[in-house]
Amino acid sequence: MAADKPRIAFIGLGAMGFGMATHLLKQGYAVTGFDIWPPTLERFRAAGGDTATTPSEAVRGHDYVVCMVATAAQAQSVLFEGESPALPALSESVSLLLCSTVPCAYVQSLETQLVEKGRGDVLLVDCPVSGGAGRAADGTLSIMAGGSDRALEKGRFLLQELSDTSKLYIVNGGIGAGSNMKMVHQVLAAVKILATGEGMGFAQQLGLDLTQTYESIQNSDASAWMFGHRGPRILSEFKPIASAITIILKDAGIITSEALRVGFPTPMTGTAEQVYFSSLGRGYGADDDSSLIRLYTEGAKGLASPLTEEDKARKFALVKGLLRGIYLCGTAESLVFAKRCQLDLNQVYDLCINAAGGSKMFETVGPEIISLLRGEQMVAEPNGESLQDVARQLQEAVAEAQRLRMPLYLGTEASNLIRLALKDASSLTQPLHRATIAKVWAA
Amino acid sequence: MAADKPRIAFIGLGAMGFGMATHLLKQGYAVTGFDIWPPTLERFRAAGGDTATTPSEAVRGHDYVVCMVATAAQAQSVLFEGESPALPALSESVSLLLCSTVPCAYVQSLETQLVEKGRGDVLLVDCPVSGGAGRAADGTLSIMAGGSDRALEKGRFLLQELSDTSKLYIVNGGIGAGSNMKMVHQVLAAVKILATGEGMGFAQQLGLDLTQTYESIQNSDASAWMFGHRGPRILSEFKPIASAITIILKDAGIITSEALRVGFPTPMTGTAEQVYFSSLGRGYGADDDSSLIRLYTEGAKGLASPLTEEDKARKFALVKGLLRGIYLCGTAESLVFAKRCQLDLNQVYDLCINAAGGSKMFETVGPEIISLLRGEQMVAEPNGESLQDVARQLQEAVAEAQRLRMPLYLGTEASNLIRLALKDASSLTQPLHRATIAKVWAA
Repeated sequence: MAADKPRIAFIGLGAMGFGMATHLLKQGYAVTGFDIWPPTLERFRAAGGDTATTPSEAVRGHDYVVCMVATAAQAQSVLFEGESPALPALSESVSLLLCSTVPCAYVQSLETQLVEKGRGDVLLVDCPVSGGAGRAADGTLSIMAGGSDRALEKGRFLLQELSDTSKLYIVNGGIGAGSNMKMVHQVLAAVKILATGEGMGFAQQLGLDLTQTYESIQNSDASAWMFGHRGPRILSEFKPIASAITIILKDAGIITSEALRVGFPTPMTGTAEQVYFSSLGRGYGADDDSSLIRLYTEGAKGLASPLTEEDKARKFALVKGLLRGIYLCGTAESLVFAKRCQLDLNQVYDLCINAAGGSKMFETVGPEIISLLRGEQMVAEPNGESLQDVARQLQEAVAEAQRLRMPLYLGTEASNLIRLALKDASSLTQPLHRATIAKVWAA
Repeated sequence: MAADKPRIAFIGLGAMGFGMATHLLKQGYAVTGFDIWPPTLERFRAAGGDTATTPSEAVRGHDYVVCMVATAAQAQSVLFEGESPALPALSESVSLLLCSTVPCAYVQSLETQLVEKGRGDVLLVDCPVSGGAGRAADGTLSIMAGGSDRALEKGRFLLQELSDTSKLYIVNGGIGAGSNMKMVHQVLAAVKILATGEGMGFAQQLGLDLTQTYESIQNSDASAWMFGHRGPRILSEFKPIASAITIILKDAGIITSEALRVGFPTPMTGTAEQVYFSSLGRGYGADDDSSLIRLYTEGAKGLASPLTEEDKARKFALVKGLLRGIYLCGTAESLVFAKRCQLDLNQVYDLCINAAGGSKMFETVGPEIISLLRGEQMVAEPNGESLQDVARQLQEAVAEAQRLRMPLYLGTEASNLIRLALKDASSLTQPLHRATIAKVWAA
């Protein structure tokens, strides 16, 4: 059976790439791996792979190349720069899968560069992935793939090998569309990773037990995938180091620099990015991103006496109000940006609810915002949650943090954004649908 | 001559109050001082004052009472709480000047409390001051005074003694209007104190000499009163400790809590406040606020080689672009808030250009924003600076900081706010007047 399967060149054997490449080995593919870190190559040979010592050597004679390096600069280097770049050794009509998370503008420039260098034959697929190292090794990643029909056709079996059956998204729009889809998802991720630290840090300053807080939040309408994953790592002293702060910072940078380029406002992601930068300055960059809670708990005082059940309930509600306000604004920022990037909003929604950016708030308010972005009139229902309701709960949290003299970077930002949405006179007299928050971002 | 002058009770002999009270002594008034800190009372006696050991004793038999405590809670305590509060000892129709910076809502509640306690005769003046300890001692403060005509009439000579001839502002609107005027001014102050640290921190990360940066900025259209005062203290290692971070944090809290109460968005002040809170968590609260630069320079690397003159000029321009973008948004936030507080915008402008919140940007764009808030059409002139011009320069700075991997809290916030203002399609094709930034805040 293995003899039927094509040989795959795999460039970039980091936490994600190593899992993906060894998964292909287990599926019976012959894989030639390349990485600049020699010990990784040894490990890959031990796992049954072949290895190469240059990008050129890795790709030569292969009909399929997967590139899973960390950044656009690394992809550029592997393909075009140095003594033995991959480009001249690429086979005619090779299938080149760029799985790295890179700016849309980069992967589009890559397509142009290939044409300019006479290699318009390369069948490039723009296919960033999501799901973490565990799912990479299981071949159950979420993958967002864009490219020409021919390129998608040739690469599809390989995308299918690497992804979960229901989580391979073919994104309309050609090269750049996959990266845009990933970028829009990462708006949710970048906001929610910091929100986890902010919410748990707030809980700690409120004197709440963090294990109880974690359970209370995740069993409520303030639950989120990220909170579910980072929360336990906060409880286990930021171990294991599963995702360094520098990783989400890189993705945040892609979002904010692309937003700057096209003139789109990203106040939520921008706020998160500044806090990530501040953690970098303090030497926390390589630490697990759950450790961002430290930026919220400095100088915290303990409580004089234990909390009553009533106090606890009131304080859990404050943390929920904070998180839900943040998630509402994060949802709006991601979906309006998706519209701006001309992505299919239903597909964005479908992808995000099943991925790391998902949350109960995204799940419920997402379809409402999508309706609003399609021009439907969104009217608050008498028994539904209004924007003013979300605002009130968030603002109680912000006011409490002010009394505690602690920062709530995202909560304050969200509170101000909601006030921007509510500033028209009509909002003083009648409840607005919570989806109207999206009008702050929408043109 | 001194015999003609009434005796003054003076409560609160801190850095500001001590200067004000001793200035009154020098002008020939008999002054009875009170403070909870005994060594201060000794110093005040040495300066020729009388002292009292309780608020009640201090005010008894006096026709004029100045209250210059630090917070609303202290004012409340002095007047109504404890064993010997001032209230029962206040003379009939006493002139009570509350010079502390307090929320509008507090001084209004004070007026109500006096009436409720049967002391509607008290001639309360709401008269916060600005200008620092030096001008307090010289009797040349800026004072913003609101109250009933009778109260203002009775207290006027005392306000005149404490203020510069041209800097006593009688604010229309009764009790609360003086505090609102101060609050609106402090929007500028709170933003510009952090902006000084942000601009100088950015300069340091760019490898610029800070003395040269200071001179370049202050000789340009990016100059500001705060930068002029905090800049030199940055150059002298945050000495002297002239204004602790906790002081501007208190004022920022008045702004953001009042804004929250009335539903007004204050994204610039809110951002500054979160950074102030983070400095508090790190134990910097009592340090001079010029030391906020430390939050921007952590982990900074030195430059490999000296800068060329061309590099320097380019980098000074980046710092200017950053500061001017921040000041533009700070100006808009303060003036739209002033309108919301129903203040006389011309008076706000006149006060702010001559006070600590002033800057070249405020001076030039302020009248334009006031025109816009009065409903005038503001059209960008072909040779004038457009909002897009300010945006471009700011965004170059933000992009450079991203490369340096450092936070620009205010710059990023301002950049996103300008993008909110520019999001309509018209802004893609035609230059907008820079005053149109105010539409982000305006209802």
